[in-house]
Amino acid sequence: MSTTADNTKVPSLAATVTRIARRARAASLVLANAPAAQKNAALLDLARRLEAPENTGAILAANALDLAAARDNALTPAQIDRLTLNPERLAHLAESVRQVAALPDPVGDVLSETARPNGLVIRKIRVPIGVIAIIYEARPNVTVDCAVLCLKSGNASILRGGREIFNTNTALAKLIAGALAAAGLPADAAQLIPTTDRAALKTLLKLNSLVHCVIPRGGESLIRFVAKTSTIPVIKHYNGVCFLFVDRDADPALAEKILVNAKTQRTGVCNALEQLLVDAPAAQKLLPGLARALLAKNVTLHAAGQAAAILRENSLPFTPARKADNTAEYLSLDLNIRVVAGLDEAVAVINRDGSGHSDAIVTSNADTAARFLAGVDSACVFWNASTRFSDGFEFGFGAEIGISTDRLHARGPMGLPELCTYKYQILGDGQTRG
Amino acid sequence: MSTTADNTKVPSLAATVTRIARRARAASLVLANAPAAQKNAALLDLARRLEAPENTGAILAANALDLAAARDNALTPAQIDRLTLNPERLAHLAESVRQVAALPDPVGDVLSETARPNGLVIRKIRVPIGVIAIIYEARPNVTVDCAVLCLKSGNASILRGGREIFNTNTALAKLIAGALAAAGLPADAAQLIPTTDRAALKTLLKLNSLVHCVIPRGGESLIRFVAKTSTIPVIKHYNGVCFLFVDRDADPALAEKILVNAKTQRTGVCNALEQLLVDAPAAQKLLPGLARALLAKNVTLHAAGQAAAILRENSLPFTPARKADNTAEYLSLDLNIRVVAGLDEAVAVINRDGSGHSDAIVTSNADTAARFLAGVDSACVFWNASTRFSDGFEFGFGAEIGISTDRLHARGPMGLPELCTYKYQILGDGQTRG
Repeated sequence: MSTTADNTKVPSLAATVTRIARRARAASLVLANAPAAQKNAALLDLARRLEAPENTGAILAANALDLAAARDNALTPAQIDRLTLNPERLAHLAESVRQVAALPDPVGDVLSETARPNGLVIRKIRVPIGVIAIIYEARPNVTVDCAVLCLKSGNASILRGGREIFNTNTALAKLIAGALAAAGLPADAAQLIPTTDRAALKTLLKLNSLVHCVIPRGGESLIRFVAKTSTIPVIKHYNGVCFLFVDRDADPALAEKILVNAKTQRTGVCNALEQLLVDAPAAQKLLPGLARALLAKNVTLHAAGQAAAILRENSLPFTPARKADNTAEYLSLDLNIRVVAGLDEAVAVINRDGSGHSDAIVTSNADTAARFLAGVDSACVFWNASTRFSDGFEFGFGAEIGISTDRLHARGPMGLPELCTYKYQILGDGQTRG
Repeated sequence: MSTTADNTKVPSLAATVTRIARRARAASLVLANAPAAQKNAALLDLARRLEAPENTGAILAANALDLAAARDNALTPAQIDRLTLNPERLAHLAESVRQVAALPDPVGDVLSETARPNGLVIRKIRVPIGVIAIIYEARPNVTVDCAVLCLKSGNASILRGGREIFNTNTALAKLIAGALAAAGLPADAAQLIPTTDRAALKTLLKLNSLVHCVIPRGGESLIRFVAKTSTIPVIKHYNGVCFLFVDRDADPALAEKILVNAKTQRTGVCNALEQLLVDAPAAQKLLPGLARALLAKNVTLHAAGQAAAILRENSLPFTPARKADNTAEYLSLDLNIRVVAGLDEAVAVINRDGSGHSDAIVTSNADTAARFLAGVDSACVFWNASTRFSDGFEFGFGAEIGISTDRLHARGPMGLPELCTYKYQILGDGQTRG
């Protein structure tokens, strides 16, 4: 511990965070064997509390403090909207908690069972990871969503939200602890770090023996900070630079429909389209129509080389593309367009310039589609469907803690099973090794 | 890049390592879709090469250089033995390569397939991780074993072994590259880092966008260095502080048999027993007999408190245990013994003092066993069997790249499927998101 004058707070913060983690670890051992009915009782009670007038008053009062500070700190209207709670949003939150309660419990599933020649029975069973730290920014719904998904999957959670929602989070955490205790579960199973001090976060991210997994949820700079600082395994969600390849054998109407949906249905999300590749033999025929459909939706087209030439020939407006456009995650009504020589180049470009998140092909040729699906090294590869379906709910998981751009442990949309690990139970009758 | 005088080598080393990783990444994209027959052809050709007289001469000559240096550097006989190759060991290595060739290919397995109400078909398919870096010490068999397991599972490997076996590794890597090329696969699919410089290793461990996973194989200090330095996800194998709990309902003969096997069959391995817990109500009756069986095998007993008292009463020799003995991984003919009040205390002690590797109970009571198997939070929990079975071969995996003490991605013995991740292929007919 530091003894310098400006660091006098560090020892007590570190001790606080370590105590929280130790309690979380103890709670996780109880939670790992809690019956589904008990966990669901806590969830349903939490949903009730989120809507009960005696609680909503306290939560909205806490939220009002955060909102006042946000206005003082001149946050943008969009930022203020994200941290705003109201009775409708609390009811929506309660409903999402009820939906998680209704999902099947992933814990205890027998993933495999084999009998060995020596008579040993080896059973692989799904169990919770243990203690999961969630590091996030200024969205109060994350506090409830993540605590609830961790609880349902038998994990203790340590929540560390942004300072912009500290008062709101404190009120929500109290509610969650109350629901846990009322169901006979340890209140320590979901704890909020009671400070937004960066030193406390750094301490947390080094507690390897007590915390088993860190999930950062927020902007790329937060994720990079957590990944760099943590000595605990991190499940990361970096950017989504999603590609659509319109193959020479694409149905033009289908291509237009999927392209417009993937680009414009919602722009600020990781599974929105950012890059269009058009197959050279079909580019003259297809690109003008596709471009007109995008322009009709106010999309700014970025293009260079052959794509720019075709747009120019057809008197269609575009912004000259620079090199950075080829890997851009615009998160806006912008799209970069390139012409590629064929499937092989499309696959190579996506594997080089993409982010391995979600990429799609439109083609009527099943063989071409199969080669694309095999060749593109991304978490989700789509044939004749919008990249916007890359989502835990759309996949039928019933819940989503995030979308992993990692390859280890979980890849793509993460539901409840992805918040679990496994253990082997080996049943013998006196076997020894020779 | 540094410009200081003593760092002039860094830029070129960094460039070399980055070039190797870039080639490995390109090779991994080819390997990911290589048919099983092609990978197996490379493996069988490698096995043949390992035994062909024209190659064994070069390998053993290279090994002789390493052995001469080892003697000059006064390595211990045990260390020298570990890095020694001879025709018999090469034949054994070739045989293990043939066994991997005979295993089923894990790549391409459909892990799940669901149809959504909107008609989308969502297929989860096992695919290789991509590029795996293996960091190890002075065992030349690791070079071949790891390259072969990575190849079979469709991963490109980057091998970085210790300087003690650099010449041997260089010869072996040449052989592997030859077998890859002969089978029409990229020779870059298994590359040796051509230097044992630490700066080169540090560069490698930061190449997140090219290398997807790091597996250190060696002593704890190597693993801690890699885990601390790497910004790439690491699959770790720390120590094995394995416990056996002899319950009040244990059959004495069964307990003795399992105890002696787990402790003495092989002592220097991670799944060997280090800690014995004896249930208090049975301690007076069971412990003297168990202790005599261990002493007959030259085991040094460490004990304090009640365990020490019982040993003393029975005039059985022991070394007074200190606190450190309660978490000791002896890796020798030593065993720490404690008396615990019952199952609950046994589980709590194991979860607190153990390493989460492999722990066992001996009991004839199925209910007690079930509570132990559920309560002990370890990768492998055994009922009436020796902890020595915690091993990929004993589990029937046919191969083992290591035993993970992590919880994310893989836990416990890791076979070929654990060297894979998955991707989602989503098949549509024009679905867009509303």
